[in-house]
Amino acid sequence: MMSREKTVNFFFEPKGIALIGASKNPLKGGQSILKNLMAGFKGKIYPVNPGHDEVNGLKSYPSILDVPDPVDFAIIFIPAEATVKAAKECAERGIPGVMVQSAGFAEVGGRGEVLQEELRAIGRKNGMRIWGPNCMGLVDPVKNHVFSFVSPAIWDEELVPGRVSFIVQSGMLSAGFLMDIMSHGTMGISKACSIGNKVDVDECDLLEYLIDDPDTGTVGLYLESMKNGKRFLDLCQRSRKPIVVLKGGKSEKGARAALSHTGSIAGDRAIISGALAQAGVVEAGDFMELMDLCRTLAQYPETSSSCGGRIAVLTYSGAAGIVSSDFLDQHGLVIADLSSKTKRALKNIFPEWMPVSNPVDLWPAIERNGPIPVWQKAFEAVCADPGVDAVFFHVFVGGLSKIPDISRMAAIAEDSGKPVFAWLLGKRNEAHCFGVQCRNLGIPVFREIGRAVECMAAVFR
Amino acid sequence: MMSREKTVNFFFEPKGIALIGASKNPLKGGQSILKNLMAGFKGKIYPVNPGHDEVNGLKSYPSILDVPDPVDFAIIFIPAEATVKAAKECAERGIPGVMVQSAGFAEVGGRGEVLQEELRAIGRKNGMRIWGPNCMGLVDPVKNHVFSFVSPAIWDEELVPGRVSFIVQSGMLSAGFLMDIMSHGTMGISKACSIGNKVDVDECDLLEYLIDDPDTGTVGLYLESMKNGKRFLDLCQRSRKPIVVLKGGKSEKGARAALSHTGSIAGDRAIISGALAQAGVVEAGDFMELMDLCRTLAQYPETSSSCGGRIAVLTYSGAAGIVSSDFLDQHGLVIADLSSKTKRALKNIFPEWMPVSNPVDLWPAIERNGPIPVWQKAFEAVCADPGVDAVFFHVFVGGLSKIPDISRMAAIAEDSGKPVFAWLLGKRNEAHCFGVQCRNLGIPVFREIGRAVECMAAVFR
Repeated sequence: MMSREKTVNFFFEPKGIALIGASKNPLKGGQSILKNLMAGFKGKIYPVNPGHDEVNGLKSYPSILDVPDPVDFAIIFIPAEATVKAAKECAERGIPGVMVQSAGFAEVGGRGEVLQEELRAIGRKNGMRIWGPNCMGLVDPVKNHVFSFVSPAIWDEELVPGRVSFIVQSGMLSAGFLMDIMSHGTMGISKACSIGNKVDVDECDLLEYLIDDPDTGTVGLYLESMKNGKRFLDLCQRSRKPIVVLKGGKSEKGARAALSHTGSIAGDRAIISGALAQAGVVEAGDFMELMDLCRTLAQYPETSSSCGGRIAVLTYSGAAGIVSSDFLDQHGLVIADLSSKTKRALKNIFPEWMPVSNPVDLWPAIERNGPIPVWQKAFEAVCADPGVDAVFFHVFVGGLSKIPDISRMAAIAEDSGKPVFAWLLGKRNEAHCFGVQCRNLGIPVFREIGRAVECMAAVFR
Repeated sequence: MMSREKTVNFFFEPKGIALIGASKNPLKGGQSILKNLMAGFKGKIYPVNPGHDEVNGLKSYPSILDVPDPVDFAIIFIPAEATVKAAKECAERGIPGVMVQSAGFAEVGGRGEVLQEELRAIGRKNGMRIWGPNCMGLVDPVKNHVFSFVSPAIWDEELVPGRVSFIVQSGMLSAGFLMDIMSHGTMGISKACSIGNKVDVDECDLLEYLIDDPDTGTVGLYLESMKNGKRFLDLCQRSRKPIVVLKGGKSEKGARAALSHTGSIAGDRAIISGALAQAGVVEAGDFMELMDLCRTLAQYPETSSSCGGRIAVLTYSGAAGIVSSDFLDQHGLVIADLSSKTKRALKNIFPEWMPVSNPVDLWPAIERNGPIPVWQKAFEAVCADPGVDAVFFHVFVGGLSKIPDISRMAAIAEDSGKPVFAWLLGKRNEAHCFGVQCRNLGIPVFREIGRAVECMAAVFR
């Protein structure tokens, strides 16, 4: 018997994949998985279906036992009852792992629990890793791997690669949610791993892989249970990458719902939060918040926490500056005292009557001198100020069109090594395009000031 | 001398408006105001400019003294120094009020403060109401009134009428922000009143008008100062409409920023929050939060708070159900215990293996029976359940297209008299269209579960 701690790397870097349950029916998941494999995966694809000689133009095999090398793992998408035999044959064939995407296991109770235990035993006995069951597998836009029955519509938006990887106990978060955030231009991702009932491969195995994965800058997790809390917290502590956790089922009612979702025992809110904080984990309460924290920390993973989080706020609205100040105060960040050099530089572009203070209201200067030079000069001044650790700027796009040259600003920020954050309002399509441009330039963009400052605070923790 | 408590109604229902500072220059605010007036206002418009005989095809008058009746008020948009003489002439002409949109008063200090005091004295002496200075006036999409130098681009999205009115100490919130929320389909509005330095007309005068305004269902305020706290709190207590306040400058740094923005003295966080809560006011911390609370309360202003806020959650994602439960618990709302009749109705559409619980995960039923009948039956069942006070449903739009018949659902909800709330994810354009459809059917839609539940809690307070 092989070690159960055997690496899970082969799921991420396979040379060949068998698909047990390949289907010709366009309404079936077995067809979606095949389409998704063929759309991006460059290795060997072996459909397994005793009823066909070919599926989607690929040779189909009657059994996994007939599949040639190389085959790193088999995706199994057949009725739960039939998965045990299939998994046994995979073990017999000497395949390192299976990814069981079928449902009908512990989450349905009764017979499903029995089947799940049988799967577990087969894996244990043969040292074969089992990912799932009741999961949506893996989506990896960097490698163009979609090992999942997610709708092939996910390719329509083009998979947006990024530096954030997710480990989630939720199909929604590895399917619809990804389509949402990619089509909205929110962020790109590296890997989304849906772990389902985690009969074997769990968040610890995947986290261990991801904290050494060069394509991953930050790991976000949605978890309903933590089976091996100690190992998980040890890994978080060891990780030099930021880790963000959304723990579902922290309330009593939530915990009860978690039990019926993935058969997970959820725990007490305060204990979990305390343990996570001690291990250096950032906690999120909601799905978009998880995404926002992850994409921000992926952009700025290594900001020295020795500085005080002194923020320069560049705005076009006095009110937005004030509300920003209130949020910065609430999150323990500081409105930077601008140096006299910075003040002189700003004074040069301000109307005479206007005193220079932080938050810096650029609107009167923009009205007088136009947006491009004012934004650039103000941005240069605050980025060069040794008393400023980060810049929070506000932009409105559309209608008035008094927008900055964002490429130039991104270059200034990059030269200074200081994190910058944007609060973006505007007309729907123009703001969307500007937001995507910011994302591509590495500037995190937010629609709410409070969320922007929360993410800023996570960077400066 | 007339009473200073004279009504401000004429600003909202004028028969004629003079524009002192009408300009032919398309880059000037005096041109924008005229364009905006001509685009929607059905009454008389009198440009005043001694340099022209006509502006935009309208007869122009050399002085306000030459303008014929009817003229309820004059919008003044000329350099600050010249406004005092203009205001004097308006008083001499017997005009009930002026709306001074020019800047350069108390917010710039020195000479500006003197000018502002001179304006105040003219108003006092003549019983003429003064709205402003340093403000963006009024935008009223119900009446198609834009009495503001906001960019005429605001008309491009068509002004979306709604039941929420705003009183704001911020130009941004009555200009760019409106374009943002209207183009994003977030909400429509009734009136946005930008009050600037409020030398005379203040939040109390406008609130007094709005709480009796038939077009206003909810009033939202962004305030940096409260000059007459007692009158304001009395009005809030008297109002039978929900009132939501975002108070800027609650932190020390924020208060300092407020001082330089509108010359306002902001106050202590805890005292303000306590007084507002006592007066039945809902407090917001951020701009979008203010909008979300207002649009929700405008939809459901009169929900009896005698019931317990027992919520049925209809979802397509176990994880979203769990996170919803956690938020409901956090906000003092309750996961409804479904009646046995409701459970039987759900059992009929569920796969056999699946137990019925709340949150109700509809996905397996949708996969088996299709989205339209499942959503409709589930919605009917929970809306008819006497143990359910409101429904929180989750929808994903795009790709899989397993979406409900939302018009039918809105009708079921309306028949039941129960508030419904939607959490909406999806591909950008499809989700946008669905969201606008929901808005038009009177269903508040949210992008974050936490915000949805916060707004739900405000309804059930």
